[in-house]
Amino acid sequence: MTPAPRTPAPRGVLARYREWLALPAGLPEVSLGEGDTPLLRVPSIERALGLRAPLFVKVEGQNPTGSFKDRGMTVAVSLAAHRGRKAVVCASTGNTAASAAAYAARAGLEALVVLPEGAVAGGKLAQAIACGARVAQVDGNFDQALALVREMASRLEVELVNSVNPARLEGQKTAAFEVCDVLGEAPAYLAIPVGNAGNITAYWMGFTQYHEAGRISSRPIMLGFQAEGAAPLVLGRPVSRPETVATAIRIGRPASWQGAIRARDESGGVIAAVSDRAILEAQQELAQREGIFCEPASAASVAGVAQLARAGYFRDASRPIVCVLTGSGLKDPDRAARMGRPGQVVRVTSRLEEVAALLGATVPSHAAPEEPVA
Amino acid sequence: MTPAPRTPAPRGVLARYREWLALPAGLPEVSLGEGDTPLLRVPSIERALGLRAPLFVKVEGQNPTGSFKDRGMTVAVSLAAHRGRKAVVCASTGNTAASAAAYAARAGLEALVVLPEGAVAGGKLAQAIACGARVAQVDGNFDQALALVREMASRLEVELVNSVNPARLEGQKTAAFEVCDVLGEAPAYLAIPVGNAGNITAYWMGFTQYHEAGRISSRPIMLGFQAEGAAPLVLGRPVSRPETVATAIRIGRPASWQGAIRARDESGGVIAAVSDRAILEAQQELAQREGIFCEPASAASVAGVAQLARAGYFRDASRPIVCVLTGSGLKDPDRAARMGRPGQVVRVTSRLEEVAALLGATVPSHAAPEEPVA
Repeated sequence: MTPAPRTPAPRGVLARYREWLALPAGLPEVSLGEGDTPLLRVPSIERALGLRAPLFVKVEGQNPTGSFKDRGMTVAVSLAAHRGRKAVVCASTGNTAASAAAYAARAGLEALVVLPEGAVAGGKLAQAIACGARVAQVDGNFDQALALVREMASRLEVELVNSVNPARLEGQKTAAFEVCDVLGEAPAYLAIPVGNAGNITAYWMGFTQYHEAGRISSRPIMLGFQAEGAAPLVLGRPVSRPETVATAIRIGRPASWQGAIRARDESGGVIAAVSDRAILEAQQELAQREGIFCEPASAASVAGVAQLARAGYFRDASRPIVCVLTGSGLKDPDRAARMGRPGQVVRVTSRLEEVAALLGATVPSHAAPEEPVA
Repeated sequence: MTPAPRTPAPRGVLARYREWLALPAGLPEVSLGEGDTPLLRVPSIERALGLRAPLFVKVEGQNPTGSFKDRGMTVAVSLAAHRGRKAVVCASTGNTAASAAAYAARAGLEALVVLPEGAVAGGKLAQAIACGARVAQVDGNFDQALALVREMASRLEVELVNSVNPARLEGQKTAAFEVCDVLGEAPAYLAIPVGNAGNITAYWMGFTQYHEAGRISSRPIMLGFQAEGAAPLVLGRPVSRPETVATAIRIGRPASWQGAIRARDESGGVIAAVSDRAILEAQQELAQREGIFCEPASAASVAGVAQLARAGYFRDASRPIVCVLTGSGLKDPDRAARMGRPGQVVRVTSRLEEVAALLGATVPSHAAPEEPVA
């Protein structure tokens, strides 16, 4: 046993990538240790889809508040503190609220989160409440909530921390850096769920920056996936009543519309729609085949890759495909609990035979078999 | 902008610490990228407690299934696969079940988890179900569930993955290595919640191993905390009906009893009880002051340090105190949602004035004030 010297990497995206981010000098670091999330190969999904290329998932649910939002929030809240703000505000389908609440608490700022009524997963609301944020549920959808907080930030001295704040995308682009740093090169394809479209915009910024700096020799083809009932970028027009089980991407009027289109067009990529059924199937496949438990919206990336794979899109692909899983399945436990098969959860007494039978096993008898009476 | 070469550290505790673990050669790695969790300083809690020593929390909720159990489960399930097992079984208050289900899925093994009825947080059950585990709720408490699966493993060809499996503690001791690697030395104190007592035993193994290898010059004083209603190690006898809001440590007959006592006695430490009220207060303080959202059981470590600090225990301490936060607050969102203050969550229309008032702000009028009519 030879002790090897071990110098841990700096923690948090500001500490790790500061020189790659356009930020003022002297910025304080409000961090919860975000970033550096696992990039896991998922061989069973590769096989199921008949892919020759290795398929990876970037597990963003392992960020401090359980979603990729933390990468941008550390930057946005650090800037808010630097500017002497006393409060941050955001509109949110849930993940932004949870992240804003946590980072605001860490910085000692107030947080006000505005949520569309009735479409926020339970875990996300619980996080925002636990971290002391004020929660306002408005009678309207996400897009109306965003319009409200934009107006509020334009007229009051509060920091808007939605992804229309450029600091958010600065932080979020670090996920693209990490993918390249781990693979040693850009992937061939980057598949990502698209709701408000900030994240696809940020990834493309990150890949472009690494490419221009010579850190990667090419940029990936960008594949964005929206839910069928909330697919404005696919339809080419806003959707006034977005509907999908994937609440985190239930957005009809994406704030970063142009960024998403640019990522698609400059990379020669695709933005397509996937059904709620395909999303839930992909979520289940990830959990049951690979033990990776993400929220429904996250699974849109894998559902989209599956859809393209079945259409022969990856026929000639041999280099890595990376799917971004944006948030943890723990954000929406009620939906997950409904994923069970009939008979998967049972009540039993504490008799061994009864429990063993659940694995199809019979308990061998203690007694030696009797000799037959000849 | 100078691109610095960046070689990511290997991911997962088997990859990072293999040479420090007593394991057979040729072991496959069943990993979900566990370990390398943040060690965060919590200055507001230091101030509130009047500590001179820096206080850190080890945020184990950022592991793949949201708890420290993943460190041991990667090793236990890797060994189960290596031995050709087809199924793993465990008794669980919830976190072990979630972890076993995920790692078994990753390895392509079946999982059967036995839970005490009515005392498992919702998020944990959801995870186990999502990952395809068979869930048996027995009419009894954790200790009875554990007795059942021990008997099952002794008579059938299934792998028991509770912490009575030594592979679990081998993996869990890596958390102690990480604390030392990040601090560059052992902390002065290590505070940890104690339920089945496997984790305190594992940390002590890890510190002892690093000490014997000369990686640290001293071992920390170990501080273990049980919930008042489930404090067998404090009472010196098993508790037949353990009760606490901290369901993850609701255990009356700890399997690693002797390991916990040894850690306490060899380190000159303490095992004490904390009230449910103190646990919930500490959970709330961590979330509201620092944005760190852990489950109630986790907060027992901070509640315990607070209790000792108020009694003057750390009067002369100047070197780091580390509190282990064993699992994510998202495991038990219903409890978290109840943490809200009256009026913290409100319904509003989309009138700006109404929302601004939640921050105590008045919206300035667009119109210039009229000249008074003279």
